[in-house]
Amino acid sequence: MDELKEYIQKVSDAANETLERILPPETHYPASIHTLMRYSSFAGGKRVRPCLVMAAYEACGGEFGDEKAMKTAAAIEMLHTFSLIHDDLPCMDDDDFRRGKPTAHKAFNEALAVLGGDALCILAFEVLASIGRVDIITEIAVALGTNGMIGGQVVDIESEGKTVDKATVEYIHNNKTTALIRASVKIGAMLANAPTQTIEKLTSYGNNVGLAFQVIDDILDEESTSETLGKNVGRDKDKGKATFPAIVGMAESKRYAQELIENAWKDIAFLGDKGAVLKDLAEYIRVRIS
Amino acid sequence: MDELKEYIQKVSDAANETLERILPPETHYPASIHTLMRYSSFAGGKRVRPCLVMAAYEACGGEFGDEKAMKTAAAIEMLHTFSLIHDDLPCMDDDDFRRGKPTAHKAFNEALAVLGGDALCILAFEVLASIGRVDIITEIAVALGTNGMIGGQVVDIESEGKTVDKATVEYIHNNKTTALIRASVKIGAMLANAPTQTIEKLTSYGNNVGLAFQVIDDILDEESTSETLGKNVGRDKDKGKATFPAIVGMAESKRYAQELIENAWKDIAFLGDKGAVLKDLAEYIRVRIS
Repeated sequence: MDELKEYIQKVSDAANETLERILPPETHYPASIHTLMRYSSFAGGKRVRPCLVMAAYEACGGEFGDEKAMKTAAAIEMLHTFSLIHDDLPCMDDDDFRRGKPTAHKAFNEALAVLGGDALCILAFEVLASIGRVDIITEIAVALGTNGMIGGQVVDIESEGKTVDKATVEYIHNNKTTALIRASVKIGAMLANAPTQTIEKLTSYGNNVGLAFQVIDDILDEESTSETLGKNVGRDKDKGKATFPAIVGMAESKRYAQELIENAWKDIAFLGDKGAVLKDLAEYIRVRIS
Repeated sequence: MDELKEYIQKVSDAANETLERILPPETHYPASIHTLMRYSSFAGGKRVRPCLVMAAYEACGGEFGDEKAMKTAAAIEMLHTFSLIHDDLPCMDDDDFRRGKPTAHKAFNEALAVLGGDALCILAFEVLASIGRVDIITEIAVALGTNGMIGGQVVDIESEGKTVDKATVEYIHNNKTTALIRASVKIGAMLANAPTQTIEKLTSYGNNVGLAFQVIDDILDEESTSETLGKNVGRDKDKGKATFPAIVGMAESKRYAQELIENAWKDIAFLGDKGAVLKDLAEYIRVRIS
């Protein structure tokens, strides 16, 4: 996994450099919102989505660091950050810490957190427009909307403290986290102008990896400590969140996560050596619970 | 002005019909957010921005009701609604009524209002992408972002209860309301593939009309009653909002609004008869204070 760690570092550096260029300077008027946008964008995220964009792009023949791919990766990371800022708000998940740092509304204030999230979302679409691919804008908008990420977040919030069935938990997982992860992989392939069948297989890979990511997140929330995870843990249970372990138990959740990773591997087997990084990324997500 | 009223009604009907097609049905899962999106979208707005898009589009040779123009007009109205929902939140302007109806967070709840605003913003970009014009997506994203509407809202909130100078009020007005109105007119001209010089003059018209609209809004907030305006009035003063009348006085504000409308008329004089609706729309905005 040392090679993968190097790859993640390389993407992370490139994504940070791109975000550095895209985000207005902290001093740009009005300074407060630009300071918040940078605070949340550089809060130590692992850049999983940019890694998936770049790995899919390269697996389909794209070259590392191409401007259109880096801009897309940075835009997707900004959209992810936008969703985190809004999810953390007092009226939503009410989280005070994220990645070991105070959340945006704690470090600044609630109004600025709402507007800073909005601004990151809007700037991401501006960046995506600069690439000139409306098909990619459509793909991302659908992944983010009420048939994707936002829909998942709505059902997640409305399920709190209720007894929910497996189908509801699956809906939440399919949408809240998986939609944007699946789109990241798909868009990487689309940017490289991969053939339809390749895009479909990579989309399936993204789906499996995204679901695994969320199931494992639920598992970690119950098993880890606050120090290792950098945020409050056990919060899901405290808030009566609809999680996979709560429905099917811990052992079955781990088995399911393993199965999802194996399905992801099968999806990209056709890529052979070109799929090495994507294979390792799936493994990287899995070993968090091993 | 009877002809204008008919025109406004015609655009309003067409915009409503387009929104009806674009917005997911209330019953679409998860129903709550789709109900909210429709509630706020059909809350009785005057559809000023769709009117400006269509009037500019037609003035530049476009045909009324063209799908790309109607979709753009509907998307801009959705973006306007998104901004209103978030502006009304308790952490922002904390307004309970809008257009005579309870605001989204009062009629539903705060979390759903945040997410419903987000979803309208994202859906608007999806709709804009379906037209296939990245230049228009760029234009709208810039108008909405921290160098436009969001920037204006940040400074507006941060100026509350403070003594601010004229330059600050002008910044707020130039951005909070004017940016999207200016973009509406400009995009109408862009959609009709108008020559650069025409686009520039219509953009200037949009700027003058947008500024006048906001100055007049400030005047109305101080002078009108709650019944006629359909929302709480005198709120600006209560909250120590930075308004034009507060800085330069009521008489000078009215003179300035008049000057802006006259400048808007000069901008479109070159259009002759083709600019009749745009001329009337500027007058329509002015007579609100006459």
